[in-house]
This record gives sequence, structure tokens and C-alpha cells, in this order.
Amino acid sequence: MINTIKINLTTEEILTQHIGVEREGLRCDVEGNLATTKHPDVFGGKLLNPYITTDFSESQLEFITPALKNATQVYDFLENLYNIAVLEIGDEYIWPQSMPCTLPDDAQIPIATFCHTEKGAQAYCYRMHLLQKYGGKKQVVSGIHYNFSFNEKIIDELYKASSKDTEYKEFRNDCYLKVARNYLRYRWLIIYLLGGSSVVHKTYEKEVIDRLENEYIDSCSSKGALSYRNGECGYANKNDLYPDYTNITAYVESINNFVIENKIESPKELYAQVRIKAYNNDDLLTSLKEDGINYLEFRSIDINPFDKAGIKKIDLEFLSIFNIFLLLKEESNYKNFQKDSNKNQFTIAQHGFLDTFLLMDGKEVKKSDWAKEILLEIKNINETLNLELNDSIEYQLKKIEDPKKTYAHKIFSKVRENGYINTHLELAKAYKQDAYNNRYLLKGFENLELSTQQIIKESIKRGININVIDPLDNFIRLEQNGHIEYIKQATKTSKDTYISMLIMENKLVTKKVLSDNNINVPKGDEITAVVDIANKKSILNKYQERAVVIKPKSTNFGLGISIFKEPASMEDLLGATEIAFKYDDTILVEEFAKGNEYRFIVIGDKVIGILNRVPANVIGNGNLSIRELVEIKNQDPLRGKGYKTPLEKIYLDENSALFLKQQSLNFDYIPKLNEIVYLRENSNISTGGDSIDYTDDIAPYFKEIAVRAAHSAGANICGVDMMIEDITAHNKNYSIIELNFNPAIHIHHYPYKGKGRNIASAVLDLLEYKIQSC
Amino acid sequence: MINTIKINLTTEEILTQHIGVEREGLRCDVEGNLATTKHPDVFGGKLLNPYITTDFSESQLEFITPALKNATQVYDFLENLYNIAVLEIGDEYIWPQSMPCTLPDDAQIPIATFCHTEKGAQAYCYRMHLLQKYGGKKQVVSGIHYNFSFNEKIIDELYKASSKDTEYKEFRNDCYLKVARNYLRYRWLIIYLLGGSSVVHKTYEKEVIDRLENEYIDSCSSKGALSYRNGECGYANKNDLYPDYTNITAYVESINNFVIENKIESPKELYAQVRIKAYNNDDLLTSLKEDGINYLEFRSIDINPFDKAGIKKIDLEFLSIFNIFLLLKEESNYKNFQKDSNKNQFTIAQHGFLDTFLLMDGKEVKKSDWAKEILLEIKNINETLNLELNDSIEYQLKKIEDPKKTYAHKIFSKVRENGYINTHLELAKAYKQDAYNNRYLLKGFENLELSTQQIIKESIKRGININVIDPLDNFIRLEQNGHIEYIKQATKTSKDTYISMLIMENKLVTKKVLSDNNINVPKGDEITAVVDIANKKSILNKYQERAVVIKPKSTNFGLGISIFKEPASMEDLLGATEIAFKYDDTILVEEFAKGNEYRFIVIGDKVIGILNRVPANVIGNGNLSIRELVEIKNQDPLRGKGYKTPLEKIYLDENSALFLKQQSLNFDYIPKLNEIVYLRENSNISTGGDSIDYTDDIAPYFKEIAVRAAHSAGANICGVDMMIEDITAHNKNYSIIELNFNPAIHIHHYPYKGKGRNIASAVLDLLEYKIQSC
Repeated sequence: MINTIKINLTTEEILTQHIGVEREGLRCDVEGNLATTKHPDVFGGKLLNPYITTDFSESQLEFITPALKNATQVYDFLENLYNIAVLEIGDEYIWPQSMPCTLPDDAQIPIATFCHTEKGAQAYCYRMHLLQKYGGKKQVVSGIHYNFSFNEKIIDELYKASSKDTEYKEFRNDCYLKVARNYLRYRWLIIYLLGGSSVVHKTYEKEVIDRLENEYIDSCSSKGALSYRNGECGYANKNDLYPDYTNITAYVESINNFVIENKIESPKELYAQVRIKAYNNDDLLTSLKEDGINYLEFRSIDINPFDKAGIKKIDLEFLSIFNIFLLLKEESNYKNFQKDSNKNQFTIAQHGFLDTFLLMDGKEVKKSDWAKEILLEIKNINETLNLELNDSIEYQLKKIEDPKKTYAHKIFSKVRENGYINTHLELAKAYKQDAYNNRYLLKGFENLELSTQQIIKESIKRGININVIDPLDNFIRLEQNGHIEYIKQATKTSKDTYISMLIMENKLVTKKVLSDNNINVPKGDEITAVVDIANKKSILNKYQERAVVIKPKSTNFGLGISIFKEPASMEDLLGATEIAFKYDDTILVEEFAKGNEYRFIVIGDKVIGILNRVPANVIGNGNLSIRELVEIKNQDPLRGKGYKTPLEKIYLDENSALFLKQQSLNFDYIPKLNEIVYLRENSNISTGGDSIDYTDDIAPYFKEIAVRAAHSAGANICGVDMMIEDITAHNKNYSIIELNFNPAIHIHHYPYKGKGRNIASAVLDLLEYKIQSC
Repeated sequence: MINTIKINLTTEEILTQHIGVEREGLRCDVEGNLATTKHPDVFGGKLLNPYITTDFSESQLEFITPALKNATQVYDFLENLYNIAVLEIGDEYIWPQSMPCTLPDDAQIPIATFCHTEKGAQAYCYRMHLLQKYGGKKQVVSGIHYNFSFNEKIIDELYKASSKDTEYKEFRNDCYLKVARNYLRYRWLIIYLLGGSSVVHKTYEKEVIDRLENEYIDSCSSKGALSYRNGECGYANKNDLYPDYTNITAYVESINNFVIENKIESPKELYAQVRIKAYNNDDLLTSLKEDGINYLEFRSIDINPFDKAGIKKIDLEFLSIFNIFLLLKEESNYKNFQKDSNKNQFTIAQHGFLDTFLLMDGKEVKKSDWAKEILLEIKNINETLNLELNDSIEYQLKKIEDPKKTYAHKIFSKVRENGYINTHLELAKAYKQDAYNNRYLLKGFENLELSTQQIIKESIKRGININVIDPLDNFIRLEQNGHIEYIKQATKTSKDTYISMLIMENKLVTKKVLSDNNINVPKGDEITAVVDIANKKSILNKYQERAVVIKPKSTNFGLGISIFKEPASMEDLLGATEIAFKYDDTILVEEFAKGNEYRFIVIGDKVIGILNRVPANVIGNGNLSIRELVEIKNQDPLRGKGYKTPLEKIYLDENSALFLKQQSLNFDYIPKLNEIVYLRENSNISTGGDSIDYTDDIAPYFKEIAVRAAHSAGANICGVDMMIEDITAHNKNYSIIELNFNPAIHIHHYPYKGKGRNIASAVLDLLEYKIQSC
């Protein structure tokens, strides 16, 4: 079998699986008590958001990744969901442990509420049923469910190499059933390697707490316990149930019988460690019979308290090869394997730290010996298939060699010293801080522009499906309930017309259109490349005694623009025209408008954000030098290098040295308290400039003008650059110098100073992706 | 005065006037009978189209230019209106003469019909009233009305230099009243220089014909007659009326009195040779009193039979300086000038060829002496103000020196020899042929792309106001009843979204979107610039045994595309990727689709045109060589050079010599009857290829697919390039290789073979500029 795979698939193809992870996490307050607040409205209805929802309790967040291709993508997406959610829950935290935080009595545990729809009522009643049958505290134990299927090509090639005496669908079902059976056999290893619920808070179920031997500050444990979630605290059916995994017909029949015999209420209630998933899980058994197995769900994985995402990437990588091991591993025909495997699970969960014995085909083997044997086989697979996962395998081996290196033992040690609540709260706080520091980006999407990352982030919040169709072009596709929108570079959408963009692209046309609509633009002239020198001079003559701007008709990013704030010589003006002509065959000569420049972001009929950009600068405290002040300012995580962050670090280069020298200053000068020292002339963010939010400070008068200006060009998404002398509008002078059809939005989300403005959210509103509350 | 102008205004400023011309022209049939057909529907309601309408009769076309800046613009626009109209009247012609063609009895002359609105009813009743009061035949005499005002800067500078003892508005009124008075005095010269109605057809009013002395074949005239339209056949009030032109108050009062005294029914009925026009001509007298004079209208100009536009450009140029002469010329205080001037008009109109005497301030002067005196003064103005109109002045001088050089005499001579109807019909036919030969272009708009010219042409037909806001960008603005649309390059409009264009621009995204919508696209792979050589080769490997296309993700015009119709070597394929990477950082490798390529133009939800392009070729007749056949093919007026025409001339260059050589042929080869010889491999129009219309030949199946493809990308205007094996769709194979967001439209209007398709009209429909029928 392994040779068939080796010959027919590349490393990438083998590791390209379909993996989706569900991760639960309780919301808790600053003291580690279960939060009693509502699930944030921003995520919409719980049955409608496929990414961020709740599980049993209103306070039990559940993060669900879509089916992704590999461990890295899954890890990144999980981290994104964490980052997004944790910044929307005020001063609460996400409890980083499968076993719950400080719990109130069952009656006070808030059950998740739903919309008053039929589905919503069902969801609520199902939870009520669980509460009564199993108790509330057990329901808020959290974990990770790992869903996966192989690259279809693997099954396909194995089938081709087989005797083909069954149909492909049956062959495929048999493959996944084998994996399921093997998972049941070897799951004890996963629990050992990934288990992390080795202590229980005292507020957990009294009957459990009473049984535990040792007390550590605010929590309890018994010797050698490794995963209470997979042991006595965990979820299990009231009786041991053994479905028949021989073939799909037998499996369906066995589950049907459990329901008929009233052992479970529905197939959904079978708490197996592995679940066989169909294409239509609402009608699981019919779908399994008709369409076969879609994917498998492993349910033994604890939350890893030592990772923000709840599971480490290196462990996700291990699971990728573990899956292949399960597919390849030949089975013995020992009949009692399900019962023995359950025993093994409990042995590991309850006494995993100890050097216990497990049952292998009815015989006792030393846990560590068996574990090493399995890992050796996995190592061989890794080498044969050239999967390059050696690091991940070695990492697991170390945990086997030394139980102290398990997550379970590590958290146990910390809890013993600092207490259960303190230990976990400290981790939760660090994760939240890290999320805040990285609030401007999305993991795994770093190759996209920051503006596009904001759109995707907001889309995830609203449960919109995202598809990056051309990363190099920042071209994405959104879909929700059949409503498809394509977006390029965050602000190029279906809500603007092509001609509207062309009006804005051509500064000459922009000015004509604005003038036609009685909106102030700088007075000016146009010069085309064919104009002779005499006529050129006669035009420039008019501007010799004024502040003047010379710019090409249609470039952006300030290319080819010359600004003369003081009257300039004819020679300088002519030079500036030559520069501008490098970018276009028509250039504009304009009076330089008075005042400060503000960037208004108009979305639809509203101004959502206003920014002013200020050159790189430091503010003195009377003690530190410019050099030291810059160093401190650069520590802001929003400041980075190369447009990967909303702001850029300030560099003390030749330019700034020269600029300071003109003011008779140098880098070692110590500015007085509150003295502002500018380090450059230009206010570009790219050279360390600051962005300052003015959205609430500019008079409505100018906002109305910005909206009118955008609408004059027919624009729904528009960056309006306006020169304003007096933002209170006592003096109503203004001049619009440019309309931008592709305004950056991330700078408004994360300004240096002032309130961030959620432009992405406004863009999604405009695109009519409302938050789906029900 | 002249010095004030000279000092303060440039030549261009002086000659930049506001000039609008109205030109009438009867529609006649192939035998020169007044047409009895309806005014073409394509021009919409007569009261709604500002450019092309009718005057008194349903058959009396009236062309109206907007207010334009100079003689050239006016001439070009008039010619355009002629060209547009004459190609919409089937096998009729436009009668090139002020005096009518063969007329039926008054009762058979069709009065223009109008919509059943209040305005429409008024228009009809007014014509009925005229018919009864003046007779029908006089009503269909046609002419030119010349409306103008000066560059406001002239009046402004004259005012500044004046004593300023009146207000500006009064000063301005006085200027125009002076021009009006001087026009009355000197109009006889204009009639002499531009008169062209020296003979009258026998079917004209019997009482006129009876009075004329000489008969020439089918027409009559009297000795020396120069302009019957300005003489006894013309329009005049029943009694001589002398409005008071002293000042605006007096003028308004005098007109009021005419109405009160029942001499005229309304101010509109005053048939003065000059009309004082207000800003609101619907309420002329009130508006004149309140707002002053807007512009003047000269009404003495005959249709010039020797010019398609009805007036020569050189004469329009002369009028520009004549206007300035009228403004500058000092007046005598001779009281009876109006009556004398009327006499002078009749003298010239009735006996202009003779060396008659005219009345100047009550004294007789020789016509030619006075004329020369005026022209000398105009020559001086020309020199002083450096207007560079010497040619035009000299041209007029020659007519004075030799009456045989007048238009009136020239037409008279021709009519005497060939008859009235024949002579004029011959001219009309030549003008129509010329219009047809130039049907693809618009005079004065040649700097715009041919596609944009088609849009403007269709806009004129529908009476839409056009404003070219940036000719270099082919950026135009349309306006009708407040409905404004901007268009760039003919097909970039408000009807497409920005994202739709971006989807089409990115071939990778286009393919994904089409595939998502179950539309066939060539199978293929993408390669990004970062892919290493090994992976590149492994991708290209798949294509080594097939026909393949390698192209950049996002260029147009075939740049960077390599097509291998035969299996290619790895070396060639790698070379092709390098070429493609010059244009983009992502390239596509695709199977080459089978069949012929067709360009579908989708507008809204319809396919309006389908073209197939064929390489440059000739079809043999058994007699002529390739060289001779090419020469004949190149005579098609649609073939030109440098994209100024819908097709390009075929050049027998090295490439074609080589291509023929490969077939063992050369330029002197004589192809057999119906033998097709191709001269190139590529089918580009730019290298002499032929465009062949297939709109009616392609099965509806493929048209539906083209529309679906466009709509998948959200496009309303789209050029769909489809490979089709069997246009009857018995074989339904097809593949869409590209969507174009800026398809050329002129090639569909004027294909080499097959029916032209009016894409521009469909674009205007899409933009909701319907033909306004009422």
C-alpha cells in the first residue's frame, strides 16, 4: 500500500488533506468565573455563523475552521478565530483549558440561547435535554474535534492498485472504517500526547471532586491523572456502546439498534471517540448508506493550555501523518478491541503519567514500549513517503521518553505552584495581549495587503465564506447564502461603476465633474504634451507669484507631483512640468490650497473615517534624546517595516539628520517636555509618519461635502482628499484635491492616535452582507 | 476700440465666438420631387432633438449646431449633421439649394407633424397659420440662420476702456444693437457674397414664375438676379416694419407696438434680417428687458449649392471677422438707414450680377466701390488684430471683382446648361456618396477613437448633448433632460461595475468565475513567477503533446501570448513562458481550443454583433495578379492607415512576400477565379485582415452562452471571444478564451463583409437614452 502512495503521489499531495477543527473555549471574567454575559452580537446568530458560535453554554465559544488543506492553514485559521473573538468580548478572557474555570451551580450555567425559529428552538431543547441527562458542569468541559478526510487521490490510487472486487464507493468506505477502527485502537496515544486536563477546579461536579486524592490550592487531582476530560469527568454514554465498524451497512444497523433500544436518543448522541460523518449529517444514517462516508471526526483531543489556538501546529502536523499510519496499519483480527481500547483510554486518562500497562490484542504491554513501536512505524512512513515531518515525530517521542514533558504534566506542575485559576488566567491574558498586538493582521493571509486582511477579518466575524482567488492581485470572493461578491484590494467592488473609477483616475475629469457640481477644487490649468514652450510659459506665468502644485493627470501615490509652497522661479516650474510629463501626457498646474490635508473615507452615503497624516516626529519628556524617544516610539507593535503593519518604524537616516541639522538639532538633542520635534518634511506613513483620527473632530459641513464629492463622481467607496483651513467650519473654505478610488482602509482601522474606524465593516454593509442576527 | 481689443485679447480669444448655425434642406426623391415620406423615426420627436428636426414641412430637414467656438467647429458639425441625416433617409436626397425642388400644389406640401402634446399642437397650428398667410411654397424656401455672440472678454475689455457711465448690461446691449444696425446696413454684401438662389423651378409659386423674364429648361430667372430667397420669393412681412434699434427699451416697445397694431401676431413673426435674441426666447420681450441681449441671428444667408454643409468654411471664417467689423464700424446718424438698407437688399437680390448702385446714407454709390471699401476696412482689422484671415478676405474680394465667381452665378450657369433639377440632384448625389464613403467618422472628432466617434454619432441622432471632456482619454459626457452619463473609450460606462472589469482583466479570475458558472474554458494551469524550473517543467510536461496557448494573466491586444497549434518542445514552451512573464507575474498555460474564434458583443442581455476575423487575403478573378487585386481591395474607403478607418490597407511587405513564398507564390501570381490567397498568418485587422459579420449565422445556443458568460462576470458590456467548431451547434463544443471589458465597436459597425451592426445604439439604449419619440 505504502508503495502505491509513494509512486503515485507527491509529498504535497499526500499531506494535502481536508482538515477542519472545532475548538471550544469558555468565556470567563477577570477572576476566572464563568462569564454570564451574552455571546457578542457582532458574530450574528449562532446557527448562522459557520466560524464563531457557541456550544452548550452561552459562555462557551466554539471556533470552527472550514475544511482546509494542511496543518499550517488550520492552525492559522484557529489562531485568527481566537484573535478575532477575544477582542470582541470586552474585559473577558477565553479559558485555555478543557476543564472549566470557576463554575456556579448547574442552575446558574447559562444555556446558549437561540433565535425563536424552529431550528433555534430545537437547539435550545437539545441542550436542556443534555443538561438534565448529564448535568451542566460536564457540558461545559471543552475540547477539540478534529475532522479530516484524505486527498481523494490517495484512495483513488489505492483502489486502482486493489483487486477492484468492490465498487469504488465501498472500497472508500472500507478505507475510512479501517482508519476509524485503528483510531479506536491507538487513540490512547493521542490522549497521552495531547492530553492537558490533569487537574480539576474545586467548583467542578462534587462527586468527581470528592473522589480525587490530592488538593492543590484551588484544585484537585489524583496521582498520574493526565486527561480528566477523557477520563471520569468527560463525556461518555451512560453505557458502553460498541457500534459495528465492519462495514457501512453493519455500522448503520448497529446505530439504528441503539436508538431503537433507547440507549441513545439519536445518532448524534453517540459519544464515540471517533465519529463517522456523512455528506448530509442532518440525516446521517440515510446519507451514509446512500452516499458513503464523507469524513471522520476524532474527539479525544484536549485543549492545550500552552497554545493560544488550543492545539500546537506541530501536533496538527503529527496528526497528518498519524492519519496515514491509521490507513496503512494492518489490523489483527482480535474481536474485543473496542472494549480493550476503552480500558486503555481510561488507563491513560487516569494514570497516564505512570508507567502503566495497556492491553494489546488482549495481552498486556508496557505503555512506553507500545508507544515507541507505533512512533517507529510512523517514522518509517515519514521516511518512505518523504514527508519531512521528522521534527514533529521526535517531539512526540520526547513526551514518551519523559512524561514530565507532556502538556498534562506541565500544567499540573504550574497549577500545583500557582493555583488553577491563576495559572490559566495568566496564560489567557498573555494570549489576549498577543491578539491585541497583532490585531491588524490575519495569520496565513500575510501575503495579502493589510486592507484586504481587514475585509477578510470582518467577513469571518459575519460568517461569510471567503475564497482568495488570486492572492497576488488581492482578489477575493465572498459568499453567504448564495450572495456572491468579488473584491479586489479591499475597496474595488461591484458597488462602484467602472466609469466612476475612471472619473477619479483622471484628475482633469475629476476636477471638471466636481466643478460642475459646485464643489471647490483648486483653480488651475491643464497643459498637454503638445503645448509649445511659449504657451507653457504663458500659463506658468500666472502661477509665479503663488503657492502652486504641478501634477500629472492620472497617477497616484504622489508620483510626479511637485509642490511649491513659496512662489517659484519659471525655471523651477518648468522643471516640475517635465517631471510630471514623465507620468502622463497631460498635466495640471494648480493653486496650492490652504490648510491641512484630510483623508475622508466615504462609504455609501456616510463618512466613516477621517485621517490626517503628520510627518515622523517625537514628543519630548525633558529626559530622553531624540534617538531614545524614537526607539521607544518604534516599540509600538503597530510599527513595522515594509507595509506589513499599519505604521512604519522611524529610521534615523541621512534625510532626518539633514532635516534636524536645518533646525540646528541632532539625534542626541533632548527635547523639552512636550516639545514636538519633526524628523522629516513629508507626512507619508511609509517614512514613519503618524496617522491621526479626526473623524469626530471635523465639522459635519465638510463631511457632507465629502459625500457630495464622492457622489458627484458616482462613487460609493471613495477616499476624498480635502484641504481645510478651519475644521470647525467657522471658516468654510475648503478645496478637494483628489478623489481616490482605491483608498487604503487599514490606516483608519489602526491609527497612531485616536479611535480606530472599522471601514471594512462599512464596506461589508455596503455590499449588503448584514450581520445575520437570526 | 480696436486697440483695446488688440492689447487685451489674443488672436484665439478674439476669434473664439459663440456660433450656432441652423441649416434647412428639403428631402427629395431620386427625381427631385419633394419627398412625401415621414421624417425618420431614428431622430425622435421633432421638438426634442436639438440637432436634427424639421422646419415648416415634414420634408424640410433642419440641422442645428450647438453654440460652438469657431468657424471650423461649426462647419464640421454641420457636415456631420448632413452625413448622419442623409444616410437615414433611404434613397432620398437633401436638396442643395435654398429655392425648392419640384413642388406639388400647396395642398400636397406635407406640413410637419408633431406629438399630440400642447407644444406639439402649437407647433402644428403655427405652421397652419403661416401656410394660410404666406402660402406653402414660400414656406419651404430654405436657408441658413447664423447665430452668434462675441467672446464676453471683448465686451468686457471695451467696457473697462469706456467712460462707464452706463451699467455693464446696458453697455453690452448697446454693443449688440450697434452690430444689429450695422448688419442691416451692410447685409447687402453678405447677400452678394453668399447668395445662391439665382434660379427658380417652374413648380414654384405661379405669380413669381410669371414675372420672371427668362426660361432655362425647367426653371426661370430674370437678368442679374442673385438671390430670389432674399428677393421677391423670400420671406418678408406683409408690410415693411422698422423696429427701433436705438436701445433695448425702444426696441422692445416698437415690437410690442407691432403686435398691438396687429402687424404681426407675435414677436416671433417679425421677419427681420437680423433678430435680437434673449436668454429666454419663449418670453422674448420680457427676457430682453430683464436680462438683456443674449445673441444675434443673421438670416440673409442662402444655402450654398456647392458645399455639402450648405455654407463653406471659408465663408464662415469671413463672417467671424465681419462680425468684428460690425462691432467696430462707426455709424453715421442718417435716419432712414433701415428703409434704404431694405432697398439695397432687393437691389442686390434682384440685380446683383449687374454693376448697380446702392444707397449709402441717402447717396448712390457703386456697389463694387462700396464693397471694396468695406473689404479694405476688414483687411485692416485682420492685420491690426493679427487674425490671419487674409485668404478668406481675398476669396471674397474675387467675387466682387468678378460677379461670375459668385455662387449665384455659378449655379445659374450650370442650371442654364443642364437644367435645374439635374444640376442640383447631381450635387446632392455626390454629397450623399461622400457621406457614405466617410460614414465611419465624424468631422472634427477625428482625434477620438473610431469607437467613440460612433457613440457621439448615435448621440447626435438621439439629440443628446455631447461634451468631450478629455479627448486624449476619449472621455465624453452625455446629457439629455438632466440625465448625465460619462463614457470613456465608447464602452467604459456606468453600466458596468468596477469589479466586473477587474474580473475580466485578470484571465485567471475570469476562468475561475466562468468555470464556477459551468461555462467552458480551456483546461489549463497557472504558473507564478516564483515557481521553480522543476515545477514549471512538470506543469509544462502535461502540454507537450497538445496544441497549447501560453499567455500572461492580464494583458490585452495579444501581447505576450504564444500559440502552439502543433505539439511543441519543452524548450519552446519554456521560451513562451519567459515571453509571457514579461507582462505579468502570473501566466496561464492552456489547451488550445478547437474551431474558429468569434467575437461576440454582448450589450445588456443581448448579443448585438458577432465578428470573425480573417487574415489579409485576395480572391482571384483569373485575370489580375495578387498585386493588382490588392490594389483594388485597398480602394475601399473603409481601408486606411493607422486606425483612422475601420479596416487597414493591405501592404505587400516582406512578411507577406515570405508567406507567399512558403506557398510557392509571389505578388505577380494570378489567382484563379474564386481562389482565395492569404497574405499573412495572423488575422489582425491592423495588418489588413478582414472582419466578417456572423451575427445572423451563429446558432442562438452560442449567443445564450455568450450572454451567460458576460453576466457571470457581472458585465453589461462585454466582448466575448469564443472558439466554436460548428456554428450551427449540431456539435455544441465551444470554449471561451477571453472576456473583454473594452471591446472595439466600430469594427462591428463597418465590417468588411456582411451587415453592419449598430453597437453604439445598443450602448445608448443600455444607458437609458431612449429615442425620444414624444
